[in-house]
Amino acid sequence: MRTLRTPRWLLILLFFGVLAPSLGMAEDKVSDGVFTANNLWMMICAGLVFIMHLGFATLETGLTQQKNTVNILFKNTFIVCFGIISYAYIGFNLMYPGDFNGFLGFTGFGLGTDAAGVTQAYNTGYTYWTDFLFQAMFAATAATIVSGAVAERIKLSSFMVFTILYVTLIYPWVGSWKWGGGWLDARGFYDFAGSTLVHSVGGWAALAGAIMLGARRGKYVGGSVRPIPGHNMPLATIGVFLLWLGWFGFNGGSVLSADPAVTSLTLMTTCIAAAAGGLSAMHTSWMFAKKPDLSMGLNGILAGLVGITAGADQMGLHSALFIGLIAGFIVYFSVIFFDKVKVDDPVGAISVHLVCGIWGTLAVGIFGAKAGIGQLFIQILGIVSYGIVCAVSAFFFFGLIKAVMGLRVSEEEEVEGLDQGEHGMPAYNDFVAASSLR
Amino acid sequence: MRTLRTPRWLLILLFFGVLAPSLGMAEDKVSDGVFTANNLWMMICAGLVFIMHLGFATLETGLTQQKNTVNILFKNTFIVCFGIISYAYIGFNLMYPGDFNGFLGFTGFGLGTDAAGVTQAYNTGYTYWTDFLFQAMFAATAATIVSGAVAERIKLSSFMVFTILYVTLIYPWVGSWKWGGGWLDARGFYDFAGSTLVHSVGGWAALAGAIMLGARRGKYVGGSVRPIPGHNMPLATIGVFLLWLGWFGFNGGSVLSADPAVTSLTLMTTCIAAAAGGLSAMHTSWMFAKKPDLSMGLNGILAGLVGITAGADQMGLHSALFIGLIAGFIVYFSVIFFDKVKVDDPVGAISVHLVCGIWGTLAVGIFGAKAGIGQLFIQILGIVSYGIVCAVSAFFFFGLIKAVMGLRVSEEEEVEGLDQGEHGMPAYNDFVAASSLR
Amino acid sequence: MRTLRTPRWLLILLFFGVLAPSLGMAEDKVSDGVFTANNLWMMICAGLVFIMHLGFATLETGLTQQKNTVNILFKNTFIVCFGIISYAYIGFNLMYPGDFNGFLGFTGFGLGTDAAGVTQAYNTGYTYWTDFLFQAMFAATAATIVSGAVAERIKLSSFMVFTILYVTLIYPWVGSWKWGGGWLDARGFYDFAGSTLVHSVGGWAALAGAIMLGARRGKYVGGSVRPIPGHNMPLATIGVFLLWLGWFGFNGGSVLSADPAVTSLTLMTTCIAAAAGGLSAMHTSWMFAKKPDLSMGLNGILAGLVGITAGADQMGLHSALFIGLIAGFIVYFSVIFFDKVKVDDPVGAISVHLVCGIWGTLAVGIFGAKAGIGQLFIQILGIVSYGIVCAVSAFFFFGLIKAVMGLRVSEEEEVEGLDQGEHGMPAYNDFVAASSLR
Repeated sequence: MRTLRTPRWLLILLFFGVLAPSLGMAEDKVSDGVFTANNLWMMICAGLVFIMHLGFATLETGLTQQKNTVNILFKNTFIVCFGIISYAYIGFNLMYPGDFNGFLGFTGFGLGTDAAGVTQAYNTGYTYWTDFLFQAMFAATAATIVSGAVAERIKLSSFMVFTILYVTLIYPWVGSWKWGGGWLDARGFYDFAGSTLVHSVGGWAALAGAIMLGARRGKYVGGSVRPIPGHNMPLATIGVFLLWLGWFGFNGGSVLSADPAVTSLTLMTTCIAAAAGGLSAMHTSWMFAKKPDLSMGLNGILAGLVGITAGADQMGLHSALFIGLIAGFIVYFSVIFFDKVKVDDPVGAISVHLVCGIWGTLAVGIFGAKAGIGQLFIQILGIVSYGIVCAVSAFFFFGLIKAVMGLRVSEEEEVEGLDQGEHGMPAYNDFVAASSLR
Repeated sequence: MRTLRTPRWLLILLFFGVLAPSLGMAEDKVSDGVFTANNLWMMICAGLVFIMHLGFATLETGLTQQKNTVNILFKNTFIVCFGIISYAYIGFNLMYPGDFNGFLGFTGFGLGTDAAGVTQAYNTGYTYWTDFLFQAMFAATAATIVSGAVAERIKLSSFMVFTILYVTLIYPWVGSWKWGGGWLDARGFYDFAGSTLVHSVGGWAALAGAIMLGARRGKYVGGSVRPIPGHNMPLATIGVFLLWLGWFGFNGGSVLSADPAVTSLTLMTTCIAAAAGGLSAMHTSWMFAKKPDLSMGLNGILAGLVGITAGADQMGLHSALFIGLIAGFIVYFSVIFFDKVKVDDPVGAISVHLVCGIWGTLAVGIFGAKAGIGQLFIQILGIVSYGIVCAVSAFFFFGLIKAVMGLRVSEEEEVEGLDQGEHGMPAYNDFVAASSLR
Repeated sequence: MRTLRTPRWLLILLFFGVLAPSLGMAEDKVSDGVFTANNLWMMICAGLVFIMHLGFATLETGLTQQKNTVNILFKNTFIVCFGIISYAYIGFNLMYPGDFNGFLGFTGFGLGTDAAGVTQAYNTGYTYWTDFLFQAMFAATAATIVSGAVAERIKLSSFMVFTILYVTLIYPWVGSWKWGGGWLDARGFYDFAGSTLVHSVGGWAALAGAIMLGARRGKYVGGSVRPIPGHNMPLATIGVFLLWLGWFGFNGGSVLSADPAVTSLTLMTTCIAAAAGGLSAMHTSWMFAKKPDLSMGLNGILAGLVGITAGADQMGLHSALFIGLIAGFIVYFSVIFFDKVKVDDPVGAISVHLVCGIWGTLAVGIFGAKAGIGQLFIQILGIVSYGIVCAVSAFFFFGLIKAVMGLRVSEEEEVEGLDQGEHGMPAYNDFVAASSLR
């Protein structure tokens, strides 16, 4: 989140600037200490959001089949590498164009290199480089969310082209509407850390991709759903714990300062919602499917995290609890719903990121400091606006790619696995793969 | 640790308050910078302790059999989710009741929500939310320790009920005796970061659970011990490294401020003891068992960490080294001892957390700034007091659960594995499990 | 990096000390806030560099064969344990001897224990313990780099003896030439965070070890290279992401303060170079080997990281990009080159750490604030000096060990795997190893 709010420490400084004007220079020195702390916190948060990319990589790998492991790891490694470079040269200046028409603006390629950029003269309480790095780590997330939903059947090169288009152009462009100070920000739309701006932006593209590709072979046979189990549950669990940890930075860093009150409140609501989402999804799946389902519990944690993200700085304990509980409940039925309509999402990304992203954005109008019918309508306006533009552009890009270079691997390659087909390299050697004995 | 010590920065402020009273307001501003830094450090430490839960999950999974992997991951995911919620609504106010009779106090359900709670008016140098979050991450640890010792044979629902009782009631209640300012704190008992309050509290329950359940099938046949090797040593190693990293927060955060001198001394002693414990256990097992044993080396690191925890802020380099070396030595013979008396502990949790927790608590009276015969007796008083209450309550809870719903899975389920029996879901697919070929 | 540069905050303080001398005491208080922040950042960076050891362990394990997994994990666990203790008792005082002859100095065994050591009186802006801890985490890295290159065939005890000698004596000794303020520092050699002082110091020993040992059986048969694929690509990917994260501390901490401008610039250049290295190696291998190669992409990220390390605080966006792109290109051809000359390096450590370490050191003279022909010559002087001493001592140590106790495991043990031969313990149980079915 990078809305132009007045930082808390600035208010404190102004206060003392009036009360104690004789202390003149001292204020700058105090600001130096707080500036250092702000910057330090934001750098740490950038590191935490970075590690979410490993979380996504291991989660997606764990929840899919062994034969597509190298492919998923390659995609996720590519996304983070490409995302950072692309954001440095284009995205950052597209997302934060400064004073612009509120719909689309761009201030040029590359990062500012003037000395002022790296000093405390920069106006948000930390340095320009820190600002870039934190936002860059967010940028690639949108494509990572797509990666899970289209896994095990999309052509590598087609996915890479989609990532390049969507991460470079769409994510920063629509992000500018709110975090860049654009038209939705002016109307009071609130999305603290990106339930909509990150998660549903990725989620709409995930939905478009899953629909355009069709289901994996053998998933829907006749009227029944045949689950294709993930190949490595420890990897999936590692992924969710890393994502939860990373969310300390995703939400905590979205305070855009080390403000003790707001950062710590945000981490509290984040963890409460995550825990509640996990418990709720465990309980729901146990009640309805009669088995305690680990992967549902894991997705419940993510659902709670995505759900709290839009209002993590606005909620109290009970609100965070309810948002998480409901998110964990929603994600269970959403996964079942998408299977019912035969949208095949191997890791549940659409349910977690799109559906719970919408839920979290709505929740800002229902719970906490901003609750109110007016706010709720503004939230819906935001959800719909992002939904239309993201879904249309994602369908357009996937359609274009399908026409030009094809989207889906051959039937033979899908059966054999993309690791062999695309990379000529299995993920695990020395182990015996079950398929080799059949 | 949350004893009411005067924070270092407060002393500094008071000092300048006398020397330079004309600077009036400036002190608040300075305190704002240090308050921000304290809060920042404590939030980071909360994140580090959080990641210990992933460390425990991967360590326990790695050291047990493949067929029980999903079960262990589910348990550990449940524990952290439940622990945070339970601590928010009950544990925190049971552990830190404020001014109380020193034995048992409770200030009501849920977290304080007044504005003062999130500002620097809160008296320990960081915010109320940060305080809660850091302590909440500790809370679930006690149950996680139990999880390892009872693995591979306990019924999931029975374990969950035990966790709920022990984490909600026992851990915070007995914790209040020292960290809440209760009767043991008044007598001078010292346990900096929880060799006793966390590790042996968990360890006593682990011992009770392992005894009540009995050994896994095939572990003790006739007079001999048949080792049941862990299924995934990379997972176990990941676990120990994550735990070591997490201990930066576990011990470093127990300073309860970012005080440069004490935090850095604490991290130094923590790392020296961990390294010494690892080397010592490697060497001991190599000497006695004639093979360099990875899992013993890993447990040695944990032994060193648990050993230093009670006095990490009190030791110098040599003391930390000795504490770690002895812990690594102890853990090797302790593991052998428990096998000799047929207490089956699949991951060595009792040896690491209970035995080395006791060692670390004693070490405060033997080494470092607090060494002395009087302190040693107080330490023993603390160890015995916690031991009696924790062992009695753990046996009582396990006994009650055994009578009401049973503790142990069926023989058939144990052989087949709890992943199938409890969850209907294997942890690894596509791989061939050895059992399927037999 | 621990050159005696004047910290930025000190300049600011001095500035205000002249402008506003009437504020007297206030400066100390401000310095207290900044001192706390510096110390906090350096402790976090120590934790981040610590986790690189897990990154190395998982990367090396993933890129080698299943049958040598326990052996590699044991080695890497030993290295970090031994490295910390050895650095505490010898290395730290050998690397930073204070005022010395510039070539070799030693100030005694163990760490200083005077009270001044843990207060803000210590002169680099953070405490003595923090200083030790951060540098200790670096120390073991040199041996870890060697571990990968000699994997799958070196005798465990021989490797341990080499590690003890090289980490205790060579790494800190040659490190003193630059970071201890020795003769190369006096001549203006620049190596910000250790492209040469850490990575090529490890790389030369890796090269010496790989040559002395010879190739693994079956790697080079007749004129052709038979790749021996790694056994677990998720582990390798986890390793590289953890290493990247750890590099936030490796480079970010080498600023030796939390200076907002320099730390954030450093993290920006570090991430840009890593991303560029990854993209470049992916692209190069795809173009030349016709397959998108995950392990090459991963090594490209590391190549970019090693490449930027010497000048991470000196570069702008474009320079960091070029350095990374070139590193990713170099690493691909370097791997091919070493296979051509039959130097068998299972994980590509020589290409990543030695070759790209040299590249990064040269890059300081080509790009960024220090570019210039004079600087370039000084950089070459440093590279050659370190190369001669490290290669000679590594060959000498390996030769000595070979003569006294042998270097290589028996042919039988190599075929069966070191896990059985050295440790009597497989890394994975319950899974069927392919070899058992042959």
